[in-house]
Amino acid sequence: MSFSPLIEQLISALRCLPGVGPKSAQRMAMQLLERDREGGRHLSEVLKLAMDGVGRCQKCRTFTEQEICNLCDSPRRDEKLLCVVETPSDVLAIEQTGGYSGLYFVLMGHLSPIDGIGPEEIGVDELLRRVDEAGVKEVIMATNPTVEGEATAFYISEQLQSQGVLVSRIAHGVPLGGELEYVDGGTLAHAMAGRKQIDL
Amino acid sequence: MSFSPLIEQLISALRCLPGVGPKSAQRMAMQLLERDREGGRHLSEVLKLAMDGVGRCQKCRTFTEQEICNLCDSPRRDEKLLCVVETPSDVLAIEQTGGYSGLYFVLMGHLSPIDGIGPEEIGVDELLRRVDEAGVKEVIMATNPTVEGEATAFYISEQLQSQGVLVSRIAHGVPLGGELEYVDGGTLAHAMAGRKQIDL
Ligand SMILES: [Zn+2]
Ligand SMILES: [Zn+2]
Repeated sequence: MSFSPLIEQLISALRCLPGVGPKSAQRMAMQLLERDREGGRHLSEVLKLAMDGVGRCQKCRTFTEQEICNLCDSPRRDEKLLCVVETPSDVLAIEQTGGYSGLYFVLMGHLSPIDGIGPEEIGVDELLRRVDEAGVKEVIMATNPTVEGEATAFYISEQLQSQGVLVSRIAHGVPLGGELEYVDGGTLAHAMAGRKQIDL
Repeated sequence: MSFSPLIEQLISALRCLPGVGPKSAQRMAMQLLERDREGGRHLSEVLKLAMDGVGRCQKCRTFTEQEICNLCDSPRRDEKLLCVVETPSDVLAIEQTGGYSGLYFVLMGHLSPIDGIGPEEIGVDELLRRVDEAGVKEVIMATNPTVEGEATAFYISEQLQSQGVLVSRIAHGVPLGGELEYVDGGTLAHAMAGRKQIDL
């Protein structure tokens, strides 16, 4: 039996966070109440701002509260080099290796005909237009090394073939069947450096 | 480099949660944005309500948004049996064993002269008055099995001696030096059942 319906609600609401089970949700709720109400209020505010305010970058489709994200807007990035990833988390993972200086294009998923996700849903037309207009020299396919990720990379490579751009795939230093965002920085940096041109 | 100041703020705000490091904060932020904005908004609302609305029960001093908590208010609990604990988390831990039917008194800490925490701060006078007015027959001291917890239990036992009430201490099934809220339910239920009267 619980002493407070509101605390029960808080414990249950915290479980929307990945990796948080009943025991750790309870610990989080009690610790905020006992020791850090200011931290809890601040989290509440930022959470609302982010859930309501974060949209998509008009150039690269990653998450941002601005029209154009800070990466696309940076004068220090090489806009002739474009890395195609599945999610914004993958952008963060690659940025944290510190070894990549180009720009990104975020598919927000991968091709999955069964779920009704075709080329349009992952923005392939936008990608082709962007490569053309910005005069991109190389496109690095950094989709996940899963069956769907490989198929998506292959499909996009075929579409890019006619544009006379070099298309490469990150090397298989990335463990097969894994998710890019959970790969350690060293492996990922190595995989980026060891990328190969895709032979069609 | 990050693509969004607001997402950076969210990742940093999530670190107020216990056990959440930079990597898991990032995973939480991205998963909410990608897959569960409704869950994130709900968490934001409940978090604000709880941080602003949760106070202390006027009878047992545990956390509640009501004047009297649901436990103190329940007609099914034995009000002649009182269990003294350090924190509301300890109440939850004991409740989850399902083996205790009495009421609680929450000290919200333990005696710590160095930090200026004396009998008044942990509500010893309130406790003595409650034991007297409710005609409590037995007080179970379930403070943490740490040096401070033992000292607090001993001090309160001495104060209760003149009131002709049975004072017991939960058995040492609870690992010494540990914190009550992290003990598994079985051990805790066993320790409650094996409690001993405190000899003064
Ligand atoms: Zn962008
Ligand atoms: Zn109460």
